[in-house]
Amino acid sequence: MRDFSANHRWLSINTATVRAQWPLDRIIDECAARGIRAISPWRDQVAAVGLDDVAKRLRSTGIELSGYCRGGMFPASTAEGRQRALDDNRRAVDEAATLNAACLVLVVGGLPGALAGAPEHRDIAAARTDVRDGIAATLEYARSAGMPLAIEPLHPMYAADRACVNTLEHALDLCDALDPERSGALGVAVDLYHVWWDPKLQEQIARAGKERLLAFHVCDWLVPTRDMLNDRGMMGDGIIDIPRIRGWVEAAGFAGYSEVEIFSSENWWRRDGGEVLDACIERHRSSV
Amino acid sequence: MRDFSANHRWLSINTATVRAQWPLDRIIDECAARGIRAISPWRDQVAAVGLDDVAKRLRSTGIELSGYCRGGMFPASTAEGRQRALDDNRRAVDEAATLNAACLVLVVGGLPGALAGAPEHRDIAAARTDVRDGIAATLEYARSAGMPLAIEPLHPMYAADRACVNTLEHALDLCDALDPERSGALGVAVDLYHVWWDPKLQEQIARAGKERLLAFHVCDWLVPTRDMLNDRGMMGDGIIDIPRIRGWVEAAGFAGYSEVEIFSSENWWRRDGGEVLDACIERHRSSV
Repeated sequence: MRDFSANHRWLSINTATVRAQWPLDRIIDECAARGIRAISPWRDQVAAVGLDDVAKRLRSTGIELSGYCRGGMFPASTAEGRQRALDDNRRAVDEAATLNAACLVLVVGGLPGALAGAPEHRDIAAARTDVRDGIAATLEYARSAGMPLAIEPLHPMYAADRACVNTLEHALDLCDALDPERSGALGVAVDLYHVWWDPKLQEQIARAGKERLLAFHVCDWLVPTRDMLNDRGMMGDGIIDIPRIRGWVEAAGFAGYSEVEIFSSENWWRRDGGEVLDACIERHRSSV
Repeated sequence: MRDFSANHRWLSINTATVRAQWPLDRIIDECAARGIRAISPWRDQVAAVGLDDVAKRLRSTGIELSGYCRGGMFPASTAEGRQRALDDNRRAVDEAATLNAACLVLVVGGLPGALAGAPEHRDIAAARTDVRDGIAATLEYARSAGMPLAIEPLHPMYAADRACVNTLEHALDLCDALDPERSGALGVAVDLYHVWWDPKLQEQIARAGKERLLAFHVCDWLVPTRDMLNDRGMMGDGIIDIPRIRGWVEAAGFAGYSEVEIFSSENWWRRDGGEVLDACIERHRSSV
């Protein structure tokens, strides 16, 4: 297992972590100033600054992308809706390729309409069929663009509205079905916030192996958690045994970035952005 | 699959559903007045009225217990703490036997101290060992008292503080380890709020079978869910396909009560208790 205590060579910042403080161009500069070598930006943050400007700034700072957030949201209750999702995922693949991302992260979607508060049906099995078909179609395009797709299982509390793939086992079943040759074109993003509770986590990480482990996200689970979406903790402030799980991931062959992704409306999003990045660096060294 | 549309013969009320409105003696009377044949009370509600008084009132009304809430909370960071939990579970078994409950429901506990906001360690595997050992010890006593134990897998969002058994698969693995003969002494409580999202649900319900399916709890998952604990919905108001899952449970041999358990600080707990019970009856017939 790599020693993270001496430096932050393998720290990546998911830019949602300081999205409340800064636009993406400033985030890139602030990361560069601190010797942070990688980020993972969100599409809306890229769009706000401009894709080409972001690409240029990444080149000039030498910062790379541990991932790009995000594709997915495949389920729909009409054929038109499913097609719109596929079109949007192609654009996401293109953007990720322009930015030379390590992978496009897929948050696969839940029941159609649920994220807007108006679920159109109760058939989670149908949503899962849409997800499988959507990934299959997107994978074909992503292969041609050389962009790996990383399915991110989300915590089961998001099954209705954000992602109906909620365990690493389920995500890997999809990978095995759609990419049986383990080509590297399809894998998973292991975000500890979503999977830490799973009694099968160690076994499924081993099953994933190097070819499927495309991204590794960290933050912490706070006790109590006061908000289902925006109360994630800084590493070390909660109850996830992060070093133990990182050990499993690295034993399986993962050797990439440890990406910090914290949504925190009442705490970290209210602090100075520089303080947040400095905390990420310090906790990366002490608690990851 | 049984037809629930014509009457509420198989409705049970988990008494937490109207705990904000009435003490348990009143709840029993109000259920009796509506022809509700079963309830599942909580220990604190029983204690507030008195165990013998409750037993007497149950006999006089003919209401039976679909379950008793609850034993469990096994993990502790000291041997004394684990022993205290075992002692308390013995008392819960005795109370359940006095009330002639169909089973004692086990909410197994999470990280020691977490429910009080002060987790004593981060080792969920250790908590799971405490749970296995605690159930094993309690099972021995419960067998002698003739009281079946029902492990209730809780939603993964409660893994840290309430229960570190979060899937039906995990609960059934424990059953197989501790009661390989499928004696009926150990099984599961399937609460749809906790397990609806699981892609392996149908398969695990079939695996459980009649001997392991000791209780069936219903309510609904609201979109959006505004509180992690107390924002459960009335059946039909959310996105769980309840009839489909009841079909699986009955196909596996379950023929007992459908128990309504709704924690709802901002809605149902604010309404008149009679209105809530009447809604439970109506939704039992239309949406379960």
